[in-house]
Amino acid sequence: MMNIICSDLEGVFIPEIWINVAEKTGIEELKLTTRDIPDYNVLMKKRLGIVDAHGLKLADITDVIETMDPMDGALEFVTWMRENAQLIILSDTFEQFAGPFMRKLGMPTLFCHQLKIDEGGRIQDYCLRQQDQKRKATIALKSLNYHVTAFGDSYNDVTMLKEADQGFLFCPPAKVIEEFPQFPVATSYDELKPLVQASLDTGALR
Amino acid sequence: MMNIICSDLEGVFIPEIWINVAEKTGIEELKLTTRDIPDYNVLMKKRLGIVDAHGLKLADITDVIETMDPMDGALEFVTWMRENAQLIILSDTFEQFAGPFMRKLGMPTLFCHQLKIDEGGRIQDYCLRQQDQKRKATIALKSLNYHVTAFGDSYNDVTMLKEADQGFLFCPPAKVIEEFPQFPVATSYDELKPLVQASLDTGALR
Repeated sequence: MMNIICSDLEGVFIPEIWINVAEKTGIEELKLTTRDIPDYNVLMKKRLGIVDAHGLKLADITDVIETMDPMDGALEFVTWMRENAQLIILSDTFEQFAGPFMRKLGMPTLFCHQLKIDEGGRIQDYCLRQQDQKRKATIALKSLNYHVTAFGDSYNDVTMLKEADQGFLFCPPAKVIEEFPQFPVATSYDELKPLVQASLDTGALR
Repeated sequence: MMNIICSDLEGVFIPEIWINVAEKTGIEELKLTTRDIPDYNVLMKKRLGIVDAHGLKLADITDVIETMDPMDGALEFVTWMRENAQLIILSDTFEQFAGPFMRKLGMPTLFCHQLKIDEGGRIQDYCLRQQDQKRKATIALKSLNYHVTAFGDSYNDVTMLKEADQGFLFCPPAKVIEEFPQFPVATSYDELKPLVQASLDTGALR
């Protein structure tokens, strides 16, 4: 059998984008997360409203993002994976935000969402490509006879991890570990690598 | 909507591998193609038998492949596509043969098949990941709400081109053009680029 790795992006290879944009722009309200506003759609509308209220356009935010770097060791880990399997990054971020990071990570393939930008560069709205896209992508890749190894750091990865042939948590919050004890946990790329390698070996034998 | 491009590999970005291996090793029989032996499985068994009879192992063939280069302009075209959409290369080659070319093309994502290699490095057999994989991958990607733009050069691309939202032929044999007049034809990357761009524009608007 052949191997595909599906990995999360934020919290795994790059820092959380909104939190860093909040810090670098000094706009405290942009630090709101789903912990503060559990409904993602309400949260996103709120974020875009804050961005607008401060007169920020897409380019202002991507300028901030350009100053951010992937985590230490992320490029090396991504490169290692791509030498050993096909890699698809599954992220709930937007392609306009992820672009600068993708270049810094060697241009891996990314399935995510997109922002709707007007002619003046203002962020008009966000468009989710589909609901529960990480799980659906995992199902689609399995339908192509791939052994799917997946990892991510949080709740929005869980349906992907459940659907994958093997799923791992990477540096998750404590309560995610408690709720989903079935997934092995890695807290560094050094710990993640043997888990991924063992899964790839399993896939190759099938 | 978001865009994915599905492209063929051999005859589009890289030369035909078996024909070049035949030329570089001087083993004329390896020039056999599906034009000579229409049944792909019979052809592949024949090829592997010839390879074995000449005492060639996988490394001997990949050494030859390492000396081959992508077509002029291929890296630039692949890079352009990856700046404007996600790209998945769908090829009926084997990952062990494609590896050296993927590095030369900037490591795009590749869905293909694999060879079964024994411990001594001999090519034991070939394993198709699945039948009609190009069409199935196109269906899978459409199920993820992607607008799929596809192109390829020959018969094994046709089911992919039919399934895609827009499909093009690139430098196809004359009889493929005759049989499938519904697909626009490009004979250079300069001709292909505006076709792909127009399809991406259509995808973005949907």
